[in-house]
Amino acid sequence: MIRAHGYAAQNAKSPLVPFTFERRDPGDHDVVIEILYCGICHSDIHQVRNEWGNSTYPMVPGHEIVGRVSARGKGVTKFREGDLVGVGCFVDSCRECGSCKEGEEQFCTGGATFTYNGTERDGKTPTFGGYSSVLVTNEDYVLRVPEGLDLAAVAPLLCAGITTYSPLRRWKASQGQRVGVVGLGGLGHMGVKFAASFGCEVTVISTSARKEADARRLGASHFLVSTDPSAMAKAMGSFDFILDTVSASHDINALLGLLRRDGTLVLVGAPDKPLEIAAMGLIFGRKTIAGSLIGGIRETQEMLDYCGEKGIVSDVEVIPMQQVDAAYDRTVKGDVRYRFSIDMKSLST
Amino acid sequence: MIRAHGYAAQNAKSPLVPFTFERRDPGDHDVVIEILYCGICHSDIHQVRNEWGNSTYPMVPGHEIVGRVSARGKGVTKFREGDLVGVGCFVDSCRECGSCKEGEEQFCTGGATFTYNGTERDGKTPTFGGYSSVLVTNEDYVLRVPEGLDLAAVAPLLCAGITTYSPLRRWKASQGQRVGVVGLGGLGHMGVKFAASFGCEVTVISTSARKEADARRLGASHFLVSTDPSAMAKAMGSFDFILDTVSASHDINALLGLLRRDGTLVLVGAPDKPLEIAAMGLIFGRKTIAGSLIGGIRETQEMLDYCGEKGIVSDVEVIPMQQVDAAYDRTVKGDVRYRFSIDMKSLST
Repeated sequence: MIRAHGYAAQNAKSPLVPFTFERRDPGDHDVVIEILYCGICHSDIHQVRNEWGNSTYPMVPGHEIVGRVSARGKGVTKFREGDLVGVGCFVDSCRECGSCKEGEEQFCTGGATFTYNGTERDGKTPTFGGYSSVLVTNEDYVLRVPEGLDLAAVAPLLCAGITTYSPLRRWKASQGQRVGVVGLGGLGHMGVKFAASFGCEVTVISTSARKEADARRLGASHFLVSTDPSAMAKAMGSFDFILDTVSASHDINALLGLLRRDGTLVLVGAPDKPLEIAAMGLIFGRKTIAGSLIGGIRETQEMLDYCGEKGIVSDVEVIPMQQVDAAYDRTVKGDVRYRFSIDMKSLST
Repeated sequence: MIRAHGYAAQNAKSPLVPFTFERRDPGDHDVVIEILYCGICHSDIHQVRNEWGNSTYPMVPGHEIVGRVSARGKGVTKFREGDLVGVGCFVDSCRECGSCKEGEEQFCTGGATFTYNGTERDGKTPTFGGYSSVLVTNEDYVLRVPEGLDLAAVAPLLCAGITTYSPLRRWKASQGQRVGVVGLGGLGHMGVKFAASFGCEVTVISTSARKEADARRLGASHFLVSTDPSAMAKAMGSFDFILDTVSASHDINALLGLLRRDGTLVLVGAPDKPLEIAAMGLIFGRKTIAGSLIGGIRETQEMLDYCGEKGIVSDVEVIPMQQVDAAYDRTVKGDVRYRFSIDMKSLST
């Protein structure tokens, strides 16, 4: 067994505390990854605090993982020691269902094995995530990370990156299209970067006028304050595609009004309460609402390769592990530009 | 001017009563149509009773119109006297906006001229619909009706037909796909006929088990009672496409659960109250909800031509105009299989 050091939540109420545990010895197709950085995703906080009601403890969170391969099983062909790699939201899946065969493992009908707060394929061994020194993972669920990028800033690509890249690609956001990105947080700021890099004319749609300068710096050409009725009225019917990253309750019908005929709004944030959608807002204009969930291994690799070519990374604030609780509180308040990335060297200090 | 005889509502509370009015003399590009049959659409009832709050009176309803050309302006090139023709939900549009230029006149940004309860392009002359002896309409908004079909049963194609044909075509319902049709009424029964004719494996999804025999007669292979939890559970994740024709409030989330990954549900009925949609139901499975509104002139002609080739018409109960009020009451109760068609010969008795 491999000794791992990390931080864990012991129950829904406790802060994260130091936690030592064991990773399995690498099987034939496993790689051992020395973790360098792990991003803080808002879903870490939901799960640490059991806000989705499905948490098991102790929980080592973290699914935005960057590290280097330090050892490998004898059957591993994709990676060698020293390779720079990433792991995202899942570390295994059934490999047999239609979704797995089509490379859409996030929709595995047998249930993908989530990187933490899940169980291995045996249905009982808990998974522990990236707030830790080392990870042992099957090579098929490991991504190759291009060299030359800021690694702290690469980590969030594994969740925030693919979550926004995938729907923009799937709905063919491209040169000259008018794309709105709702919410400028961890997801939204990646959505702006990707959409701008695809040649879209990007508008950030936000309740907060003070984010305009940042939005433009990230690649937006326009900024629309969603609480300004006259600005919203002027923008009616003008967007080809809207990427909605907001997980707080908000007025979806107003956003649908911003779409042109045959436009699409894709949800990647999930408000707790049901969305209240006026059917007429979809029927008049033949509009679409869809959801999207991270991305499969193949598309995540495509996204990382694209980021390597274009030099795209997340905007991060790097913290030592010891500051994780404060970082959670700031994340909940939206007080981070735009993702925290934990430096795992801090574990040994 | 041309004298027209019809039935009109004089206010939101009154029954329909005989009404004589004038149609314009045909302009250069107008055809004069002697109306043979007009279908009763549920939206006629909403508007007669001012349930949408936008009614003007007197109102001559009716937008599922079949008739023969009896005269034409000197510039008319598409039609000749004696031609069998149809008119649907709109009789004009701006002709200049993107939607009009693309043949999607129903989404005219200047506002299509609805066949009744609307105004001509002058913004003031009221339009009167198909519950009448004669119509004068610009040839560009008139459809050619194939000979050889039951004309009473053709009339509902102009609204119920195109409303269901268009989304099935747009979302490419085709051979071997599993298609659900929610609600077996005026719209739903046409949806079943079209989807079955496209080679889809059709399931009618209904609250009412007693409609099963009819569903199968119309072309469905399966019947799913939406109030049967075990049947619904078994059908989870099995549909490629769902056409939702129900305008009463109903559980959209249960229907979304029936879709496979990347499946689409299209609304053509519009419940008054907002739909309550759980975002997670869209995100997990990357599912889509969209709306669709009748169809443009080009697609309506395509639909009629297709119906001519395949011998597809609506199932109708033919009534004289004098029974329109009773027919309205029965339509509201869902007591018609599946559309009333008014025989305009009755106007002269």
